[in-house]
Amino acid sequence: MTQFGEYLATKELQRLAQKPTDLSKDGTLNTKRLTQMSAKNLGLTLFYGTERVSENVMHHLNLLAEEAHVLDKMRAMQRGSVVNSLEGSPNEGKKVLHTATRDFFDPQSEENPTKQEAANAYQEFEKLKHFLEVVDKQGFHSLIQIGIGGSELGPASLYFALQAFQKPNRVVHFISNIDPDHAAHVLSLVDLNKTIVVVVSKSGNTLETRMNEMLVRKRFADLGLSPQHHLVAVTQKGSPMDQPEQYKEVFYLWDYVGGRYSSSSMVGCVPLAFALGMEKVLEFLRGMNAMDKAALEPDLHKNLPLLSALLNIWNRNFLHYPTCAIIPYSYALSHLPAHLQQCEMESNGKRVDKTGKLVDFETAPIIWGGVGTDGQHSFYQLLHQGTIVAPVEFIGFKESEYGQDLADEKGVTLQEKLLANLFAHSLALATGYHHDQLNQSFPGNRPSRILLAHQCTPYTVGMILAYFEHKTIFQGFIWNINSFDQEGVELGKKLSKRIIEQFRKKNLGKEYEKEFPLSDPYIKALECLNGPATPPRKTRMCWSDPGRE
Amino acid sequence: MTQFGEYLATKELQRLAQKPTDLSKDGTLNTKRLTQMSAKNLGLTLFYGTERVSENVMHHLNLLAEEAHVLDKMRAMQRGSVVNSLEGSPNEGKKVLHTATRDFFDPQSEENPTKQEAANAYQEFEKLKHFLEVVDKQGFHSLIQIGIGGSELGPASLYFALQAFQKPNRVVHFISNIDPDHAAHVLSLVDLNKTIVVVVSKSGNTLETRMNEMLVRKRFADLGLSPQHHLVAVTQKGSPMDQPEQYKEVFYLWDYVGGRYSSSSMVGCVPLAFALGMEKVLEFLRGMNAMDKAALEPDLHKNLPLLSALLNIWNRNFLHYPTCAIIPYSYALSHLPAHLQQCEMESNGKRVDKTGKLVDFETAPIIWGGVGTDGQHSFYQLLHQGTIVAPVEFIGFKESEYGQDLADEKGVTLQEKLLANLFAHSLALATGYHHDQLNQSFPGNRPSRILLAHQCTPYTVGMILAYFEHKTIFQGFIWNINSFDQEGVELGKKLSKRIIEQFRKKNLGKEYEKEFPLSDPYIKALECLNGPATPPRKTRMCWSDPGRE
Repeated sequence: MTQFGEYLATKELQRLAQKPTDLSKDGTLNTKRLTQMSAKNLGLTLFYGTERVSENVMHHLNLLAEEAHVLDKMRAMQRGSVVNSLEGSPNEGKKVLHTATRDFFDPQSEENPTKQEAANAYQEFEKLKHFLEVVDKQGFHSLIQIGIGGSELGPASLYFALQAFQKPNRVVHFISNIDPDHAAHVLSLVDLNKTIVVVVSKSGNTLETRMNEMLVRKRFADLGLSPQHHLVAVTQKGSPMDQPEQYKEVFYLWDYVGGRYSSSSMVGCVPLAFALGMEKVLEFLRGMNAMDKAALEPDLHKNLPLLSALLNIWNRNFLHYPTCAIIPYSYALSHLPAHLQQCEMESNGKRVDKTGKLVDFETAPIIWGGVGTDGQHSFYQLLHQGTIVAPVEFIGFKESEYGQDLADEKGVTLQEKLLANLFAHSLALATGYHHDQLNQSFPGNRPSRILLAHQCTPYTVGMILAYFEHKTIFQGFIWNINSFDQEGVELGKKLSKRIIEQFRKKNLGKEYEKEFPLSDPYIKALECLNGPATPPRKTRMCWSDPGRE
Repeated sequence: MTQFGEYLATKELQRLAQKPTDLSKDGTLNTKRLTQMSAKNLGLTLFYGTERVSENVMHHLNLLAEEAHVLDKMRAMQRGSVVNSLEGSPNEGKKVLHTATRDFFDPQSEENPTKQEAANAYQEFEKLKHFLEVVDKQGFHSLIQIGIGGSELGPASLYFALQAFQKPNRVVHFISNIDPDHAAHVLSLVDLNKTIVVVVSKSGNTLETRMNEMLVRKRFADLGLSPQHHLVAVTQKGSPMDQPEQYKEVFYLWDYVGGRYSSSSMVGCVPLAFALGMEKVLEFLRGMNAMDKAALEPDLHKNLPLLSALLNIWNRNFLHYPTCAIIPYSYALSHLPAHLQQCEMESNGKRVDKTGKLVDFETAPIIWGGVGTDGQHSFYQLLHQGTIVAPVEFIGFKESEYGQDLADEKGVTLQEKLLANLFAHSLALATGYHHDQLNQSFPGNRPSRILLAHQCTPYTVGMILAYFEHKTIFQGFIWNINSFDQEGVELGKKLSKRIIEQFRKKNLGKEYEKEFPLSDPYIKALECLNGPATPPRKTRMCWSDPGRE
């Protein structure tokens, strides 16, 4: 049996889950419950009275956290222990120190084991300051970031979240996809003369990123512009991209910062600082740093990411809900669900624990979502009346970001109507509503929670991002899985290389050129993979070992 | 028992589902299977050899379609029968004729029962042509569409899909959310002097849309511009918005076109025609119309939407997968998954069948997704190695849209690399891969299918959109649910009105003004809902009947 199954709290929670709190029962969801089941820290409030938990469930979730030593693990991670590891696997065994990339606000003691990493981050930050002074003088007004996965999703969601704070005449675009239409579309929007292009790849080997870089370099050259006066690299020291003569500047990343946790490194800071200026980026990092510290709090009502992680564990492992929707009632956070989808699904979408054994419990749910109130006019029908129950994590703000609001004839602002809708749906999902006509009836008992903040500012966005990062990591600690590798992407990567080889052969031969049947490469691809040239070596294998990069 | 449970095919499929095809078994997934399990019509190919189906399963799915009389129902719908209905419900009982809004390409016979609806649509189309001539002459270059749900998701995904075909100097933006930051952001991007604003609401009562209209009208007035020279309405005759004197033009919608199926009406055609011109919109409508006819084909291998619907039924009701991911390998289709999410989840996220009984089977899954290759660097880890299996519907194109591609040193283009990745992941999900190290092992048997087309053009996009519309409707026919109402959004709507009333009271009273605790309206909202002023009238009810709009 795996560790998770052996915890005493697990067994008790399994028992409690047989009869979870009935929120649809008259009087259960009262103001006392909503008040008591709310936790406040750093100006954020987490309301969880609309989850199907009792005080007893919360007590045992807290015990589960203790049995799994999650606070010790979080402390160890933040102090530089090797947590990116898996027994018997030769490939991993690294520190995980994205927290160090924003840990330069307090005086560092000599004993701080991560002071070197914090100093590394600060050094890049200083470089960025000088770089931006040059960029300002040279009159650049557009920036294109080329990167995929963590090199795009985090930075793009942050850039979008903070557009209200943008400097005048600054715009940032992103190219991620290997689809040539992505680059073509973005390049049609900018004046390359005045454009900085930031190429982000930790390994320096990311297929999509390097191909898009090549395409953009060609475009600069075609225009008679010198690519190295426009291109900037963000990569690891010694990578194929660590070529200062080919770039205007090279910013560094480190092995101990994973892609999906890299928003606070130069991956996120270069585009954000270009758009917002250094001061706003510092505020954002201060927000992340404050939440990093809150994630070490032993008091569960102060440690919001741990509290939220435990509620997710309850929903996933005990009530067995297969998905979780993230729904900010905030246009600014429109792109956040896509980033959190990666953060959770790539970190915790695993079936092997850290001892190398197959797990006998459920790990990451499917993360999806969108913004309210838009979702109300789209998928809420299923949330309220579908045959499947999908827990929701709502996010809300008291104040609007732009401050351009409008009151109706009754003096109620749009922002207040936005909040009213958020509150209404959270309550409606929980309590349901009985009507004799079944199609107008709502079963209720559909769990949700609300993370409420004052306003979507750089500091708040930093806190919210770190809140979700730590929530994901806490879940990984409880499940005892490695949240920091991504073996699941290797097979597709290897296979696609083989199919690309098929395309090359097709391109060399002329036989397909005139009338190339669309289905051909697909069928051929499989032929190649199954064919006699690459016989199966193991029983269940359909092609030979694709090896490792 | 419900109808679905009583079909003979249902029982046999349940038996077959106990041992679905093992795609990970050496040799199962071969080129013969991939070739046979592919269906081609209108230049589209649907490859489904990577689904966990046998020929026997397909045979019984076909029988299920016959038992449920889905072709008769589709024909009846397209000929104007009342299909938006539910026994015992006084509120619905309407025709569903979005197909008529694109049915003016062939000569109409006198016997065609929907010739009036087709003529209605054509009349608006003629109005649009004249309107655009005026707009062209007056030099408008921006258009903002204000609408939410179906009035935004479809049109926005189509606009984004076809940007490569856009007329020069034309841009379209969308405002949907009641969040005032949405309007503020979009208004910061345009010159209102040269901007048309299209306000879309069938009822003329949509809260978000009317509030945003009010905000935009105020902005025009503040600039000394006359709103009625810029604003256009798309609404039903007689609605509160049917005020020709207040708008530059009023385009009409009809009761028989539901919001989520309204892209081919003026809801989608006004912004598309502004961006692309009338010719391209006609091509788009021709594509939809062609697929409408294909949806009547008795041959399952010609009727791609029905084939796909049956595969979804297999995955949902027999293999019990709770979600379905839509993943276009196309940057142009980035916004399509959000539209399809609404289409399916709002149509089929129901728990009551058309006889008014609770269903005893699963209806719509959760629809989520994103574009490839981006997803590979995000959530594919879970797809390949998570503890949950999520079937995937891939979409791919042979040619790029912009035609700005780049070949590498081996002569392989980015578009070919994009396709190679698509094929590789579809195969890898199916076959899996065995490795002695479990975290490098892939279980396989994760179903997917690929819809392949030649190029993302207006005609193809029209076909693809109608393909998904009909797929959703076929599923509803098989489940015998009403795919055309949305009772599930009513409760939240009523509750939010009450909470808005709370905000009004707060704004009138002064006590909260100075230090307004963020949590207060939430707690207060519940107090109001639970309090003695609105005593429970039925057993399970937490507040009085909110009534119907």
